Amino acid sequence: MTAARDLKELSEAEALRRLASVPFGRVVFTLHALPAVRPVNHVVADGRVVIRTNPGTVLSKEVAPAAAVVAFEADDLDPYERLGWSVIVTGIARPVTDQEEAERFKKLLQPWVQGGMDQVISIQPEIVNGFELVPLDDAS
Amino acid sequence: MTAARDLKELSEAEALRRLASVPFGRVVFTLHALPAVRPVNHVVADGRVVIRTNPGTVLSKEVAPAAAVVAFEADDLDPYERLGWSVIVTGIARPVTDQEEAERFKKLLQPWVQGGMDQVISIQPEIVNGFELVPLDDAS
Repeated sequence: MTAARDLKELSEAEALRRLASVPFGRVVFTLHALPAVRPVNHVVADGRVVIRTNPGTVLSKEVAPAAAVVAFEADDLDPYERLGWSVIVTGIARPVTDQEEAERFKKLLQPWVQGGMDQVISIQPEIVNGFELVPLDDAS
Repeated sequence: MTAARDLKELSEAEALRRLASVPFGRVVFTLHALPAVRPVNHVVADGRVVIRTNPGTVLSKEVAPAAAVVAFEADDLDPYERLGWSVIVTGIARPVTDQEEAERFKKLLQPWVQGGMDQVISIQPEIVNGFELVPLDDAS
């Protein structure tokens, strides 16, 4: 049986570095007053989390146009060793409307799913939380 | 460059089977009107998603006692092949107050993190959504 772990907080800089090191995460938002979540691939560019969505989806049509507050979570957790990390940023999602900026982000971020993922959305982190699972004696 | 994928919807039964096949996911909830998310290990038992939390946390103190609607997401996605799946269930989170039931769930679910993870919370799935990333020619 694997030993239980301690939670160690990550610095904001380290949390953002880890968030940028993985190719996908989960955008968390409120839809008709209910909690909702969608996995999506992302990049971190200019300090923002950038994703691409289909213009027909609720993220494109409702969440980003309303400049809604969303959370974005990414993690790299090993269930066998029970080690790893998770980062959660909270901030405002907005459509990237500047054509030049949108094209630049599109070059950085190929969607995994086919079909008109032409809406670029950026999330500006306002709150950054990160933690790491560490062996008990390493916690400090 | 890996080809783009199609999204194929999973049946409810298959989605729940996959959710039960992985050891952790992310509980998604609303905290002071803001979207919030916490990774946590889980089991599926009696058709419910069961997690353990520290009694001092917001999930134990605010979300579950209020019988709030939450989402629970789990996935197994391969960023290199761009294949895999994600399942999202939405339902009411409640503290498991029956002592016998709580003890039974605790035996099924060892927390990864040390320190008084003595609150057992169950989520009863009301809405089940699952999708799979498949090669374009396999979509049907």
